[in-house]
Formats: sequence, C-alpha cells, structure tokens
Amino acid sequence: MSFETTATIASFGGKLLKLKHQSSSTGTDMALNLYLPPQALKSGGKVPVLFYLSGLTCTGDNCSEKGFFQHGASQKGLAVVYPDTSPRGLKIEGEDDAYDFGSGAGFYVDATKEPWNKGYNMYSYITKELPEALFAHFKELDGSRVSITGHSMGGHGALTLFLKNPGMYKSVSAFAPIANPINAPWGQKAFKGYFGEDQQQRWKEHDATELVKQWKGPLEVLIDVGTGDNFYKQKQLLPENFIDAAKQAGNDKGINLRLQPDYDHSYYFMATFADDHVAWAAKHLGV
Amino acid sequence: MSFETTATIASFGGKLLKLKHQSSSTGTDMALNLYLPPQALKSGGKVPVLFYLSGLTCTGDNCSEKGFFQHGASQKGLAVVYPDTSPRGLKIEGEDDAYDFGSGAGFYVDATKEPWNKGYNMYSYITKELPEALFAHFKELDGSRVSITGHSMGGHGALTLFLKNPGMYKSVSAFAPIANPINAPWGQKAFKGYFGEDQQQRWKEHDATELVKQWKGPLEVLIDVGTGDNFYKQKQLLPENFIDAAKQAGNDKGINLRLQPDYDHSYYFMATFADDHVAWAAKHLGV
Repeated sequence: MSFETTATIASFGGKLLKLKHQSSSTGTDMALNLYLPPQALKSGGKVPVLFYLSGLTCTGDNCSEKGFFQHGASQKGLAVVYPDTSPRGLKIEGEDDAYDFGSGAGFYVDATKEPWNKGYNMYSYITKELPEALFAHFKELDGSRVSITGHSMGGHGALTLFLKNPGMYKSVSAFAPIANPINAPWGQKAFKGYFGEDQQQRWKEHDATELVKQWKGPLEVLIDVGTGDNFYKQKQLLPENFIDAAKQAGNDKGINLRLQPDYDHSYYFMATFADDHVAWAAKHLGV
Repeated sequence: MSFETTATIASFGGKLLKLKHQSSSTGTDMALNLYLPPQALKSGGKVPVLFYLSGLTCTGDNCSEKGFFQHGASQKGLAVVYPDTSPRGLKIEGEDDAYDFGSGAGFYVDATKEPWNKGYNMYSYITKELPEALFAHFKELDGSRVSITGHSMGGHGALTLFLKNPGMYKSVSAFAPIANPINAPWGQKAFKGYFGEDQQQRWKEHDATELVKQWKGPLEVLIDVGTGDNFYKQKQLLPENFIDAAKQAGNDKGINLRLQPDYDHSYYFMATFADDHVAWAAKHLGV
C-alpha cells in the first residue's frame, strides 16, 4: 500500500512527513505524520522507530506540533510515527456526536459490535497494516527495532499493544494512560460501544491491568502521570491499579510510575517529559 | 495595575501563568502568558526576562504551546513574556476583516490615524505599560535585565523596539522578521492603515532597515530565516535589506543572519531554533 506525502516540513534537522494512505483495516483514507531524524536522511541511513499513540480527540498533528518528541528523536536518531486515533468519515450514525466515542476515539481495538465493526479496527491498523506498509515503503526505517508510547487513550493503546504482542515492541512507556479501562468511565463507554456490554472477556483482553497479570518474564515500563491531572483525580486513569496487578503477579519491579507534582493532562506536561520517554525508547532500541 | 491569573500550568519545571489585566494603552483587557522558570519559584529568586513578540494572527498561546522556549528558559533561568498581538474587542468597524490588519495584527506601533488610534497602541503597551506592570507585580522578575525576540511581525517588533530604545533591552533576536516593512506588502498595508499613506517619516520610524542606519555603537543581532519560507520568497521579510543597510552604516559585523535550509515560517521552524535564541538572550543577560 503506497503513501501520498501531502507535506514535508523541516524540524530539528530532520523532516516531518504528512502522509495519507488507503487503509484496508478501516476502509478509509488514513492520515499520519512520520518524523525522520537527520540520521535517516543520510544515504543508507536506517533508524529505529517509535510509535506514538495519541489521546481522545487528537490526530497525529497535535503531538507533532506540541509534544516536543522531535527534539529528543533528532538527538537519538529515532523515527517517530504519529497515527490518527480512529477512522474518519465512515458516516456511521452518531460517529461525531461525542468526544470520547467514535471519531477521534478508536481506543486501539477492533470493534466487534455493529455498526462499529465496519471500520473501527485501530488495533489491526496499528499493529499490522500500518507498520507493514511503512516498513515496505520507507527503507530508512528499521522494522526490527520498534518501540511504542502514547498519551491517555494512547497510553492505554501503548500498554495493551505491548502486553498483547510480546516481542513486537522493544519498549513501552506512557503518559497519563487509561491503565484500567474496564473500571473507568471512558473505557467502559468505549468497550460497551465497540464490543457490547456482555463481552466481558473481550473487555479484559484490552485492559492493561488485566493483561499485566498474565505477563511472563521481565517487564520494564515508564509511566508519567501529573498529580494536577483532573482525569487522574476523576479516576479515569487508575495507574495504581496497574501497579497493584503487576505487584500481585510479581512483575512490578521494572515499572517506574512517576507522579509528577502539579502537572496536568495537557501537552505542556507531555513536552516536559518527552525527552525522557524518547531516551527510554532509545535505550531499549540500542541507540 | 493588577493581574488576574486565569490558569497556572506546570511546564519544564516552572509555571506558565495565563494572565489578564486592564490596559490603559489599548483601553481593553489584555491577555498574556508569563513563564516563570524553576529558578524564579525559589524563595527570593530573581530572574531576567525575555519578551517574545508573536506574529500575525497569533495570541501569546501559540508560541507557549508550540515554540518550546520554555525548554531553554527552564535550563537558563529566564522568564518569558508572551503578550498578545493587538487589542481585542474594540468594536472598530473592519477590525476582524483581515488576518493582516486590525485584530491579531497590531504591528507594535501606536496608531495615529482614526479610528485605529482609539486603542491600537501596542508600541506603548509593550515598551512601557506591560513591563512596568509586570515588574511592579512580580517581584521574581528582574526588570533591569530584559531581552527581546519575536517571530515575523513580532520579529519586526523585536528589532524596531530594540533599535528605538537603546539600553532598554540587553539583546535582540528574531525569527523570520519583517525586516523592511515599508518595502513589503504586509508592512505597507499596516502602516497605511495605522499612520496614513502620507506619513512616510512615521513609517520609517518603525522600519528596522531604516532604524539600523541611525544606530550608534556596536550592534549584535541573531536572525534566523528558513529558505523554504514562502513569505521570505514572496519578499515580505527582506532580511537582506536590513543587512545591507547595517553594512552601509558600518554596523553589520555583529549581525548573524542564518539562512536555515528548507525551514518554513511555522512553529516547527521556531521550535527547532528556540534554544539558540534563548541562549543568545541568556548570554547577553549574564546567565
């Protein structure tokens, strides 16, 4: 599947490509941004790749503009992929009615309930179709060295995709992740809509706190959460549940949950700690 | 004049304050952002101040979110002031009709032509009223150590305010400044509107290229312009005219015009070189 480059923007010595391609997972065109660091622009350059999954309401543009990942990625020599958060324009009734379900809120699952199963397949898109297409098209990307991170709904995505696919990602980190969606209003609404209320087993298969109980072997995770984050206070994120579950499974030693004093849920928070998450990925990617 | 703090946001170890105050220069409420670095939050901390002037259409929010001055300012211990670009809500007819005149386009002049002379006094606001109010209210700001920078229309503002007020600012730098507005469509439209077509002397008093001819003594300026900047290509910026005028006046030795390959006019460009401009200011501010 080929990509159309709709813009090329110089950024921190590298290039940010605005891309568009037809997705068979979603049945729509999908937009995304790809940051190629200076190291990828040299002849024969081959760089590892960090997937960044965005939160509710966002496209790949928000973090490209406000997240400050290019700063660290340029220094470490990482490509960064910023996908969209859902299909757009499927014309499903109600698709654009809420900020936390439908457009901009794909939750990185493959929906099984009608009508959302028509194209809300962000799990397949992010874990299979998109990386395969990118690595086939962009020879400067090293598809054998891939890490993942994300924010809020995208932090949920990063944790679950990592835990469901051992070996696929060299590392995982998250900013203010929805770490236990089956026990949080956002997650419950989304999973009810995409899977149905009676599909409790399927809900658990996309819940980081449930998944970490099953994890075998060592586990290293970096998580930042701001103590001034209203969604944290409202118990939408529940990172402590994730830690507790890992502890019960004897897998918490490598989990670094940092509660950052006063930080909120915004890109100001993300930008502040973006360098740390890029460094975390870079360390595990061997750069 | 007192400030109302409408939000306090943690950013790079410091605090970004969203402020509002009544301005006698403009006759309106004015919003701005003030970044206090971690060094200012310590008891008795006193930090130098960098004024950042925004470009057409912007408020102080755009650069606070996308310019990443906080990154360098946090490391160097500089406060950053992000003012608005014009009065808002004066209800002058036509005020909101164009992106390059009226709201969001105050051009850092005091208008003399009716009806704009009613409140379009951004020159007085930025050079007098705002710093006096800030330094009276925020004791952590060192009003004796102030530098200035800006982008596009704000680059014009930074250069002209610096050149018109010897000693007021310890240093100046600019991103893609409108460096010779009397010879560029944007500047001609603005000066015609704010001063009148027949006020050529007044036009020259707000033109960096004209002002640099009169500058006495040494002059150090850092200017970044992207070679992929469409406004540069369209001759809205004309930085070479500024260099030529300085050269004729024997004052060009300390001007560092960097033409940055492929960079455009956006905040991606600004973010890439923000650290350099903060370091430039910090060096001249003695930190």
